Amino acid sequence: MNLRLKSAYSQLKQRRLDALLVSLPANISYLTESLSRDAYLLVSEKGNIYFTDSRYTEEAGAFLKDNAKLKECDGPVFKCIVQASLELGLKRIGFEERHLAFAEFTKIKEYAKGSFDLIPTHSIIEDKRQVKDKQEIARLRKATRITALALEYIRKFLAPGIKEVEVVAELERFIRYHGARASAFDIIVASGRNSSQPHHFSGSRRLRDNEPVLIDLGVDYLGYKSDLTRVFFLGKMKVLVRKVYDIVLSAQEQAIKRIKPGAEMAEIDRVAREYINSKGYAGYFTHNLGHGYGLQVHEDPRISRHEASALKPGMTFTVEPGIYLPGKFGIRIEDMVLVTRKGCEVLSGSINK
Amino acid sequence: MNLRLKSAYSQLKQRRLDALLVSLPANISYLTESLSRDAYLLVSEKGNIYFTDSRYTEEAGAFLKDNAKLKECDGPVFKCIVQASLELGLKRIGFEERHLAFAEFTKIKEYAKGSFDLIPTHSIIEDKRQVKDKQEIARLRKATRITALALEYIRKFLAPGIKEVEVVAELERFIRYHGARASAFDIIVASGRNSSQPHHFSGSRRLRDNEPVLIDLGVDYLGYKSDLTRVFFLGKMKVLVRKVYDIVLSAQEQAIKRIKPGAEMAEIDRVAREYINSKGYAGYFTHNLGHGYGLQVHEDPRISRHEASALKPGMTFTVEPGIYLPGKFGIRIEDMVLVTRKGCEVLSGSINK
Repeated sequence: MNLRLKSAYSQLKQRRLDALLVSLPANISYLTESLSRDAYLLVSEKGNIYFTDSRYTEEAGAFLKDNAKLKECDGPVFKCIVQASLELGLKRIGFEERHLAFAEFTKIKEYAKGSFDLIPTHSIIEDKRQVKDKQEIARLRKATRITALALEYIRKFLAPGIKEVEVVAELERFIRYHGARASAFDIIVASGRNSSQPHHFSGSRRLRDNEPVLIDLGVDYLGYKSDLTRVFFLGKMKVLVRKVYDIVLSAQEQAIKRIKPGAEMAEIDRVAREYINSKGYAGYFTHNLGHGYGLQVHEDPRISRHEASALKPGMTFTVEPGIYLPGKFGIRIEDMVLVTRKGCEVLSGSINK
Repeated sequence: MNLRLKSAYSQLKQRRLDALLVSLPANISYLTESLSRDAYLLVSEKGNIYFTDSRYTEEAGAFLKDNAKLKECDGPVFKCIVQASLELGLKRIGFEERHLAFAEFTKIKEYAKGSFDLIPTHSIIEDKRQVKDKQEIARLRKATRITALALEYIRKFLAPGIKEVEVVAELERFIRYHGARASAFDIIVASGRNSSQPHHFSGSRRLRDNEPVLIDLGVDYLGYKSDLTRVFFLGKMKVLVRKVYDIVLSAQEQAIKRIKPGAEMAEIDRVAREYINSKGYAGYFTHNLGHGYGLQVHEDPRISRHEASALKPGMTFTVEPGIYLPGKFGIRIEDMVLVTRKGCEVLSGSINK
């Protein structure tokens, strides 16, 4: 059995739980070191059980090894889970309150008929996932490398007249020829005024000269996600665009300099935000400075003004200040950092800004 | 205000609710006739409110029109929702019990402090979505057309030595040059023995002569999803493969013949399943015969042995019998049908089998 499961056992003990029902796919993938989907995982020292249906039993059989027993559920999955819990004699079962629907909770309750307690839990596995191990970091490096290659490739492809969605098409093709399983999210290609929407849906607008082209790209490498944004320019940069670009870049550099173990997350956000505010763009940087990445493209930690926690070595998160001028344009520069023992490494540092 | 929202009002009245908090993105997209994401929609005759954050306010402002008031939430979204509910004087608010996490339900309860009742509801909007209107059918036709073009294109591309994931790469590119916004799900390219897994992860296996290549492809056109499976062959089909292929095809044809308004869903499944069983493959057709498609690639109705409901004109669902021989190969043939007044139309009928 792997170390991640063993560590989960000790978390359960601390909470006096004799099992945890894991329902978030990324948490299940983490605990089973696999690419899990459409499954539930019951973690207990009395026996780990992986519940799935016939579409996935062949692949699950291959990756589970001695980490969990495979249980194929013919009927309702929650009936199946309750039955297995009763067989193990479980009495206090934790569940992931953010990842179990109200109706699912109700169903388990009904099938259980009071034979065990269902205890809401919060982020038990997510908290462990914030700090990456060597294997995870290696995969994130590889995901970042593929992303860097793709951006280098696409930079040469960009030309006036090409549609945003065609740029996405070329990226989706390229990454799969270079080792990615898939993109990590809907790739954003936002040209001209579309760039003022932080999460623009790439569409049929054609690239034009003298406009920014914002590209936000992430890939999935063995389940691990990258997330990077660059703004390219065709022709000349207008004066205002250049000014805003330089402010965002400088805000990012200042924030990255502060990253080290022990630093407060809110402080990292504040450094970038206050610089942007001081340059007259208060209110135009409308999201958090960054977010964790790993098995999910958005995960803890949140690098936000409201997050007082301290950074730890092995944490991975994005640093992505932005300034969005509605109806005009937007600039976001996003890099991926890894907190090291003394400071941080920008995994995406090789990619031109 | 659109007809879909008005129809929702009458559903609420029947249940003596004065509002419904909609949390499933596809339901919100349906009610607002848009591509919604990261939002909640409060539907009430006293006023519809769309809650989102600053990343999406520009796009939401453009598509909401008079269907709902836009509310940008700075702080916790559930606090924002409760506040708006109090301002409207709501007393009985339904929520979608399958699409609200236990923790979200708890948060609303806490903020509300007993000032209104939260009532679990089930499939109010999903039930309406089962029957498609003209605009929806037009979009599904277009999605199907793009899928057909892509399969025609890729058939010529397939050759021994090409990796599964490279086939995916070409499809992901092609569909975006032909009007799709994205693929509707992880495209499945399963070659040789990989085809025995109904939902194989496309990987680095190379196509070989005299083996089946199963391709399960769907695209998203303005939010509407297609879902189609074909099995291609390089070189010669082995005798057993041909035999299984013919059984699956015949099972599908027999099921499709029975589709008409009033027919029982379970019966359609049964026709295909019993034929497969009668040919000696009982236990190798391991999933339901089909599922609805529309704003979600899997939605109601489920065409399953256990579903006694009757078909209605305007319903759209897949018919996809399969036989999976673990360790050997699998065959699935999947088409998309639309129930008409007298029978059904196979939207994907133009695509060779």
